Amino acid sequence: MRDLYELAGTEPDRLFSPYCWRTRMALAHKGLSARTIPWRFTEKDAIAKSGQGLVPVLVDGDRWIADSWAIAEYLEDAYSDRPPLFGGGAGRALSRFYNNWTNAVLQPGLIRFALLDVHRHLHEKDKAYFRQSREQRFGQTLEAFVADRDRYLDLFRQSLAPLRSTLQAQRFLGGETPLYADYIVFGAFQWVRCISDYGVLAEDDPIAAWRGRMLDLFDGMAGKAKGYPV
Amino acid sequence: MRDLYELAGTEPDRLFSPYCWRTRMALAHKGLSARTIPWRFTEKDAIAKSGQGLVPVLVDGDRWIADSWAIAEYLEDAYSDRPPLFGGGAGRALSRFYNNWTNAVLQPGLIRFALLDVHRHLHEKDKAYFRQSREQRFGQTLEAFVADRDRYLDLFRQSLAPLRSTLQAQRFLGGETPLYADYIVFGAFQWVRCISDYGVLAEDDPIAAWRGRMLDLFDGMAGKAKGYPV
Repeated sequence: MRDLYELAGTEPDRLFSPYCWRTRMALAHKGLSARTIPWRFTEKDAIAKSGQGLVPVLVDGDRWIADSWAIAEYLEDAYSDRPPLFGGGAGRALSRFYNNWTNAVLQPGLIRFALLDVHRHLHEKDKAYFRQSREQRFGQTLEAFVADRDRYLDLFRQSLAPLRSTLQAQRFLGGETPLYADYIVFGAFQWVRCISDYGVLAEDDPIAAWRGRMLDLFDGMAGKAKGYPV
Repeated sequence: MRDLYELAGTEPDRLFSPYCWRTRMALAHKGLSARTIPWRFTEKDAIAKSGQGLVPVLVDGDRWIADSWAIAEYLEDAYSDRPPLFGGGAGRALSRFYNNWTNAVLQPGLIRFALLDVHRHLHEKDKAYFRQSREQRFGQTLEAFVADRDRYLDLFRQSLAPLRSTLQAQRFLGGETPLYADYIVFGAFQWVRCISDYGVLAEDDPIAAWRGRMLDLFDGMAGKAKGYPV
């Protein structure tokens, strides 16, 4: 039996951590099931055995593994007889830049549009923690932070240029079929889709077409998850 | 016998196209030699057989191949018995994003510092063409474009965050040893080093340490090339 602690909102089936989505997609890629344990920011005790306080946390038998990158490496090594997440060869090393680009460019770009929507969907017991920590980080209220979000849309879409031209040339970042690099980047778009109806991508953007392919994977797993239409 | 047409300046041994450096490093990785044919922007006739007007152009026997990415793919396929450029598996697909990130983010960031230095090193017959085309592209004189370049340095260095954190975690983008992804990114830094003494990286930047390792590869090939100390 496998358990995956995933960030949830008021509704236990609204799952909206970009990092948890990386892991959820990676598990499906390996053909592995895991029971979702809905988790909220303030439930640190529940995952104390992982040695830290953030999700995703995967419990595989008696092993507790935290951090989406570490979990991907664990899955690749522990289930090496199943489809490779990193594409073999030097794929693991080459995937790391996707992780860091998503963390440093893509997600900070998306939070500009979705910060208040995250707060809106949080469980009541998480709201004060989230508001305080994010308002301190961004130096303004959540409401003020997103008030003029439209102004940032063009710049955000421009920042996706390397992703766009890559997905114009090939179906997935991994080539003809998706790899963990795809799940890293997709996790960010899925996170926003699950809590916001804000249109971060233009309809005719090749990235939107790729997102559609990602939503369809694994019998539409990500597309069926509770969220907003894209 | 192999020939590589490479962009040169007044001095035929000052080679400063980022795209040509990608190819030059890829050839060395494969253990292949190629004679440098110094080429200037206005010498379109010399490479007409390639069907277009830009370098690098590789002539391998009776084959003419243009475009650094296409050349890398050609080398990988034609010399598959030699060390892989893309790292095997899905590495070729995963390398494309590096190409597009370097073209869309890294090189446009660097040109802010180096545009006038490029012009200064160009062959006399290229100067008018270069000035006219670049001043049209950027909407101002070369001199005005770089006049306040210091103002952009912090922002540029911030834009390298994904590269920096990757190279803090591993020696090369390809892992323990360099791959074509490394040569793509390195080509941009080497381009600037060959024509400018402007310090685009802080000395203690992990990217600078990686650049040092790249300059040392292949018996110091890139480090010995005519340019400025870093």
